[in-house]
Amino acid sequence: MRQAGRYQPEYREIKKTRRLVDIVMDPKLCALVTLSPIDQLNVDAAILFSDIIMPIAPMGITFEIRDGIGPCLDNPIREREHVKRLSVPDFAAGMPYVSETISILRNQLTVPLIGFCGAPFTLACYLIEGGPSKHFTHVRRTMHGDPDFWNVLMEILTAGMSAYLRFQAECGAQALQIFDSWVGTLGVDDYQDHVLPHLMRLVSEVNNHADVPIIYFGVHTGHLLEKIAESGCDVIGLDWRVSIAEARRRVPANIALQGNLDPGLLLGPWDKLEQHAQSILDQVAEPGFIFNLGHGVTPETSVETLQKLTQFVHNSTISPS
Amino acid sequence: MRQAGRYQPEYREIKKTRRLVDIVMDPKLCALVTLSPIDQLNVDAAILFSDIIMPIAPMGITFEIRDGIGPCLDNPIREREHVKRLSVPDFAAGMPYVSETISILRNQLTVPLIGFCGAPFTLACYLIEGGPSKHFTHVRRTMHGDPDFWNVLMEILTAGMSAYLRFQAECGAQALQIFDSWVGTLGVDDYQDHVLPHLMRLVSEVNNHADVPIIYFGVHTGHLLEKIAESGCDVIGLDWRVSIAEARRRVPANIALQGNLDPGLLLGPWDKLEQHAQSILDQVAEPGFIFNLGHGVTPETSVETLQKLTQFVHNSTISPS
Repeated sequence: MRQAGRYQPEYREIKKTRRLVDIVMDPKLCALVTLSPIDQLNVDAAILFSDIIMPIAPMGITFEIRDGIGPCLDNPIREREHVKRLSVPDFAAGMPYVSETISILRNQLTVPLIGFCGAPFTLACYLIEGGPSKHFTHVRRTMHGDPDFWNVLMEILTAGMSAYLRFQAECGAQALQIFDSWVGTLGVDDYQDHVLPHLMRLVSEVNNHADVPIIYFGVHTGHLLEKIAESGCDVIGLDWRVSIAEARRRVPANIALQGNLDPGLLLGPWDKLEQHAQSILDQVAEPGFIFNLGHGVTPETSVETLQKLTQFVHNSTISPS
Repeated sequence: MRQAGRYQPEYREIKKTRRLVDIVMDPKLCALVTLSPIDQLNVDAAILFSDIIMPIAPMGITFEIRDGIGPCLDNPIREREHVKRLSVPDFAAGMPYVSETISILRNQLTVPLIGFCGAPFTLACYLIEGGPSKHFTHVRRTMHGDPDFWNVLMEILTAGMSAYLRFQAECGAQALQIFDSWVGTLGVDDYQDHVLPHLMRLVSEVNNHADVPIIYFGVHTGHLLEKIAESGCDVIGLDWRVSIAEARRRVPANIALQGNLDPGLLLGPWDKLEQHAQSILDQVAEPGFIFNLGHGVTPETSVETLQKLTQFVHNSTISPS
C-alpha cells in the first residue's frame, strides 16, 4: 500500500499545489514524500511513492488522475486495433525520474525499498473501461467475448510490467509488489483461465532477471488464494476478510503472508485496535510473515494511531504456532 | 436482484419521464414494471419493483436517489441524537402503495411474488455515510468507536425492517429477500459481533409472524458463509466468487442455495454462458437450489440472452449429486 498519503498533514500541504504526477516526476520531492512516513511511523520498509498507472504513459497511453476518482483515459482500449497504441519502452529512458528517485532513496534509507507495479488484469481494467468501474462491463465482454484480443492486451501489459519491475530492481528496489486491486471481481475459473497464465509469466520473467522477492496483493481475493499461490510469488498480501490462520492453511508453506489489519480499526479506540493486532500476531506461523494493513490508510486516520501501532508490533514477541 | 431494469427497452422508455420513486409509488405502473420481465423472460418468480431505501422514508429520513450514484441523504446519522429521527411506523399507513401494488400483482401473477428489504447493516451504511461509500469510514468509526450507538441504530433498523417485511407478507408476498449488499466489506469477527445478532433477531421476528421463506443475499460474502448460515434464513443467495459446490460443503443441509451465474457472462458468447450455466447445474445437490444470477443484470445485457438462459435452465435435467 502507498505509505504516504492524505492522513499526513505535510502530504496534504504538498497536494495543495502539486498533483500526484507532479510529485512522482520530481525525484527530490518524490523521495521526500516516500521518506516522510518512514521516520514518522518507524516502519520496516519503504515503498516508492507512485501510482500503478504511471508506466502506462511511456507505453503509449495518455491518462489523467482525477482527484477522488482515479486514473481516467480519454481513449479506452476497446478494439484489437487499439492495442497497437501500446509498446514496451526502454523504461530507463521513458521514466528517468524513477531511477533518480530510487537512487536518492537508497542513499538515505536504512530500511529496504519496495518497488511496485499494477498487475496486468487491473491495468487492463483501467485501459478497457477508461477509468474506475463498478461492473467491469467492457472487461467482461472482452474477456469472455474475444479471448484472443484479451490475451494480446494482457501479453503486452505483462511484457511492459515485467520490464518495468526489472527496471526498478536494476535501479535498486529490494522487493517488488504487484497490485491487483480489482481482480477480486473475478470468479476462480475466470482467474485461472484469463489472469493466472499472464501473472505466472510476469513473475517468472522478473525472477529470471532480478533476485528480489515478489509480493502479490489483491482486495477481496479470499476465494482465489489457492490459484494466487500458483503464480510463483514469494509473498501473498491479504486484506482483512480472510484470517491469517485460514490463509496459512490454504497457502503452501514456501510462500510468506503479509497483512491484514482492517484499516477501519485505525478509526476506532486503541484497545480494540490492539486486540485485533495481537490476534493477527497470535496467528503467525512459519515460514514468514509481514505485519501490514489489509488495505490503504484512509485520510481520516491519525498519524499518532499509526505510530502507536508500529510500536506495539515492534514490541510484540511472536511465538510461531 | 431487481428483475426490471435498464436492459429492457420499455423500462428505459419509462425512466425517461419517471424517477424510480415515481414508479414505486404508482401502484399500477409499479405492477406493470414488476410484471414486465416475468412473461418476457419466463422466470419462475417475480420480485416487487422497489429499492431498499424506500421504507426509510416512513421511518423518518428523507433521501434522494441520484441517477448513477444511488440513494443520498442530506443529513447523515452521525451522532446518537440523530437516531431519534428514526421510528418504526405503521407501514400500511406509511406505504399504502406497496399493499396496492402487491394486490394487483397477486391477481395477475401465476408465479410467486418475492418481497424484500435492505439488511440493517447495509441500511446503516447509507444512513451513516449519507450515500454509497468506498471505505465506509464513518461506519467503521461508529461500529468500532461507539458500539452502543451502533447497536441502537441497528436495533431500530432491525425493528423497522422486521415490520416492513411482515407488512409485505401480510399484503401477499410469498417469499422475502434480505439484501445485504455491502456487508462483504466486513471481516468475520466484525460480522459476528456487529451484524449477526441483529440479523438473527430480524429473521426470527419475521418467522414468528409470517410463514414465508427468507432469502439472504450479499455480495463478496464468501468468507462469511458459515456465519450467514447461523442467521436462521432459509436460503442463502451467492455471488459467483464462491462455487455452489463449495458453498454446499460449508452451509448446513437445511439451508437452500441460490445463485450464482456471473452476470458478466451475459455479455459474452452463448457457448461460454451455456457452459457456465451447465457447470452450476452440475454442482446442484439436495436439499434445495434456486438458479439465479450472482448479481444484478447490467444495462448492456440483451433481453434475448436472458430469454435463452431461462429456456436453457428450464430444459435442463438436474441430477442432484
